[in-house]
Amino acid sequence: MSRVTIKRPILRVRDTTTRRFDSLAAEEPLEIRLDGTPLTVTMRTPGDDFDLAAGFLVSEGAVGRAADVSAIRYCAGALADGTQTYNVLDVRLAPGVPHPEPRNFYTTSSCGVCGKASLEAVRTVARWTPREDPIRLSRQTITALPDRLRSAQRVFERTGGLHAAGLFTPSGEAMCVREDVGRHNAVDKLLGWALRGDLLPLRETVLMVSGRASFELVQKAVMAGIPVLAAVSAPSSLAVELAAEEGMTLIGFLRGESMNVYTGEHRLDVTPATGLGSAGGRSPG
Amino acid sequence: MSRVTIKRPILRVRDTTTRRFDSLAAEEPLEIRLDGTPLTVTMRTPGDDFDLAAGFLVSEGAVGRAADVSAIRYCAGALADGTQTYNVLDVRLAPGVPHPEPRNFYTTSSCGVCGKASLEAVRTVARWTPREDPIRLSRQTITALPDRLRSAQRVFERTGGLHAAGLFTPSGEAMCVREDVGRHNAVDKLLGWALRGDLLPLRETVLMVSGRASFELVQKAVMAGIPVLAAVSAPSSLAVELAAEEGMTLIGFLRGESMNVYTGEHRLDVTPATGLGSAGGRSPG
Repeated sequence: MSRVTIKRPILRVRDTTTRRFDSLAAEEPLEIRLDGTPLTVTMRTPGDDFDLAAGFLVSEGAVGRAADVSAIRYCAGALADGTQTYNVLDVRLAPGVPHPEPRNFYTTSSCGVCGKASLEAVRTVARWTPREDPIRLSRQTITALPDRLRSAQRVFERTGGLHAAGLFTPSGEAMCVREDVGRHNAVDKLLGWALRGDLLPLRETVLMVSGRASFELVQKAVMAGIPVLAAVSAPSSLAVELAAEEGMTLIGFLRGESMNVYTGEHRLDVTPATGLGSAGGRSPG
Repeated sequence: MSRVTIKRPILRVRDTTTRRFDSLAAEEPLEIRLDGTPLTVTMRTPGDDFDLAAGFLVSEGAVGRAADVSAIRYCAGALADGTQTYNVLDVRLAPGVPHPEPRNFYTTSSCGVCGKASLEAVRTVARWTPREDPIRLSRQTITALPDRLRSAQRVFERTGGLHAAGLFTPSGEAMCVREDVGRHNAVDKLLGWALRGDLLPLRETVLMVSGRASFELVQKAVMAGIPVLAAVSAPSSLAVELAAEEGMTLIGFLRGESMNVYTGEHRLDVTPATGLGSAGGRSPG
């Protein structure tokens, strides 16, 4: 049985009600250790675990080149009886690469989690900035991304339960596509793939995700030096705020021929026909 | 300006390309303190923050009755200059209520995160079990839930960016509906609302969520004693596994007149017309 999907008997209620087997997206905990010390546990879809662990460390700002990681391996004999579970990984950092400090949310000010201060409190420190990235994208390239992401998804069609993240070239070619029950894990799997291939920073690339664009996803893109993030659904306010601050291009509601461009429109070949507020609909509040 | 939605200028690309203002779902960090000590930071949509904090403690197994919490308040003068940020909360537990221990993922066995062991490792300990809950639901009641959840959503229509969670009676009446950029936060807001009204355990209720059903959401339902969880999209494998183990009813892909019942079908008035595997489609793997 695949560990990426699990078959379960279900009661399927349609015009008639039948019993059948259905495929579920697998979700299992992965414990990531760093030089033997437990670092985090994430609920993930098994597969590309080494990429996930490496990408998690990219997101946390701990590593930036393939040589920063000297080895990744599954813990042998993970259970007391010696059974290999493939759910515990150990990452060995290269000599001289410091361990990441836990992000300390509580040291900014006496009680200060707000606006700029809040961004500082939850932000990781990036090695690169996408601000000057010269990538230019045509409208055709962008609107083709959702279909390309969907066609590259291996498991979604069977379970409907997986998020996807894809990394694309300026002409819209897929470089890497990853899936996971957790949106952040799908992106970490991409970043780890890039790290292990020594492709960081990911200049002149586009990250496309299947769901919404949260602060966390924008932050991961920044940590990998990705200049453009496109999402099928809505971004959050803090996602837009961070993208604006970092000089990233952020696109949401990318469906069919439509999209909303929240930041960084200078990288896109789309020309506004009319001025701000002249299109009817909602007015500024 | 509302703190639940934020207006931003965007470039709107359709048949024509226009500039306009659009509403975004607000996302801000909330720091939850327990008797003055920082406990967690969550990225949430402002609103119902006291419920969110209380519900987080329900999910962690720290509290089970309204009297377990003696006070919740925003930290005064959250910034050095005295500005109130409304992004830091302090929860005071009643005398004698022990502080929750951090969930220790690493003590189960030498290296054991797998199957049963993995479930034990990431699970909180529930005060109640939904196993014997006598709730019975008609098909009509269940299939009406998505529309009722949607019509109760206040912000979604404006931003498209929020998850919703609703608590319903056996006849499908909405008891409480909450929204958040984070699905787990929307559910925690519901649980906190219930705790503060001393409604736990939530026997004979249905929890309906707008997205997928993850392990984490099933676990939150269990922690509140909710016997039925229904989701618009797919559950994960571990969500189904936990629901089965706890005797919960888990419904997924609830859309129109259709649904998939993964566990606990005895609570539903749906009768299978045919036997397992006879309906065509995929066969057992």
